[in-house]
Amino acid sequence: MRRLVRFGVSLEDELLRRFDKTLRASGYKNRSKAISDLVREKLIEKEWEEGGEVVGVISMLYDHHQRELSRKLTSLQHEHYRTILSSQHIHLDRHLCLEVVVARGEADEVRKLADLIAASRGVKHVKLSMSSTGENI
Amino acid sequence: MRRLVRFGVSLEDELLRRFDKTLRASGYKNRSKAISDLVREKLIEKEWEEGGEVVGVISMLYDHHQRELSRKLTSLQHEHYRTILSSQHIHLDRHLCLEVVVARGEADEVRKLADLIAASRGVKHVKLSMSSTGENI
Amino acid sequence: MRRLVRFGVSLEDELLRRFDKTLRASGYKNRSKAISDLVREKLIEKEWEEGGEVVGVISMLYDHHQRELSRKLTSLQHEHYRTILSSQHIHLDRHLCLEVVVARGEADEVRKLADLIAASRGVKHVKLSMSSTGENI
Amino acid sequence: MRRLVRFGVSLEDELLRRFDKTLRASGYKNRSKAISDLVREKLIEKEWEEGGEVVGVISMLYDHHQRELSRKLTSLQHEHYRTILSSQHIHLDRHLCLEVVVARGEADEVRKLADLIAASRGVKHVKLSMSSTGENI
Repeated sequence: MRRLVRFGVSLEDELLRRFDKTLRASGYKNRSKAISDLVREKLIEKEWEEGGEVVGVISMLYDHHQRELSRKLTSLQHEHYRTILSSQHIHLDRHLCLEVVVARGEADEVRKLADLIAASRGVKHVKLSMSSTGENI
Repeated sequence: MRRLVRFGVSLEDELLRRFDKTLRASGYKNRSKAISDLVREKLIEKEWEEGGEVVGVISMLYDHHQRELSRKLTSLQHEHYRTILSSQHIHLDRHLCLEVVVARGEADEVRKLADLIAASRGVKHVKLSMSSTGENI
Repeated sequence: MRRLVRFGVSLEDELLRRFDKTLRASGYKNRSKAISDLVREKLIEKEWEEGGEVVGVISMLYDHHQRELSRKLTSLQHEHYRTILSSQHIHLDRHLCLEVVVARGEADEVRKLADLIAASRGVKHVKLSMSSTGENI
Repeated sequence: MRRLVRFGVSLEDELLRRFDKTLRASGYKNRSKAISDLVREKLIEKEWEEGGEVVGVISMLYDHHQRELSRKLTSLQHEHYRTILSSQHIHLDRHLCLEVVVARGEADEVRKLADLIAASRGVKHVKLSMSSTGENI
């Protein structure tokens, strides 16, 4: 279990007042939690910049009527079974699907996988969202 | 089924050469596909800026040992059952979970839901990734 | 003069250790300064989201050999003289210029101005960078 | 002088209609110009990701009453005179200044310079905006 450390921070009164106001509006009950979140967000950006093991969430929007596409995406995912942890499928309407895969691996590897999916004929939009293994944050 | 329209585009030769090179490196086989993707990405940004119905992918990293947290996140998600379409859970290690929910609704509503999750005690990182219903792109 | 307020923050020891390490690498000597910066960055993002008076830095890359462009950009800037505070010009090579203008006004107004510049024939790249009047942070 | 190349692009009719609508709203008169801009934006992102010579615009917001800060920022800039091309100063109010410097160099060097400025006591906000030498786009 991780230990909490307490330390003092000095902020300008007006800045703090505005920060607290924003926190209340977002549902935060605790300033330390909010500051931890800002710190973690910063560190996760660094993890992705500097390489190393990361977790990425790749969402892809596609038309399942596109010939061969479902099959192709499935086989592409299986080729990367060491990187892809799981997948989730949503039927958006008669034609469109949103598939969300969670990938874990080197930052560049995950980026490359997202590019490969985006390049597939019939895929309309791909977004890579940066998360973390949580080990170092 | 949507109809394809063909039109002419003029680009500087050097710019086109570099673009084609980048496309090959990312696995694209087709310039029209790549340009469609840039256009869709732009339009999805607008959908989120201007409000309207969107699809968002919210990933949350949390420690399931945090007392009451799993229960709290589940009940928070149920309160928003009209917005949240589905959820996916990954066991990252003994302590940490990554949960990915797909939400559909007004852009502001989805943003607010992501904030609420982020503000929950024990949640370490939340990322909202912007996708689309696909209806208008 | 603004008053400093001191308060306590609790962070996990490991998270704090990593944050401190990143700060040292970036040249920070002071944790409060780093946390203030994260807080201000967040608040400036909100200022731009929620509208209100902002300061934006618009950089534009263009070819001054493009017929009429310099004249057009100058006249466009003069039409917005109430918004544009100042301008800086760099000769990148025989053909290319980088011009950087600082604009102050409603967030939407500044965004629209950047769009107008980007749409001008001969302008190759426009980037809007979000800063602040500093009044509320 | 660069030569224009003309080629055909196929887009879905509905997608094209929406793209054209967005272009009109932003002041674009020309679809090729808009597509060139999307392509250049993409290539400039790559220039920054992959390293190489870039142009960056660093804006810094600071309080000139902060003891020694103006002198320190000036001397920091002079130490990097090979990277910094020019600087522009705006008096935002009695206390606050916005200074905008244009830097040209390796992507990492420019990022590091922005970090160093941000870490300086009294600097309230620093933003690095990514532009280009224009040589390869």
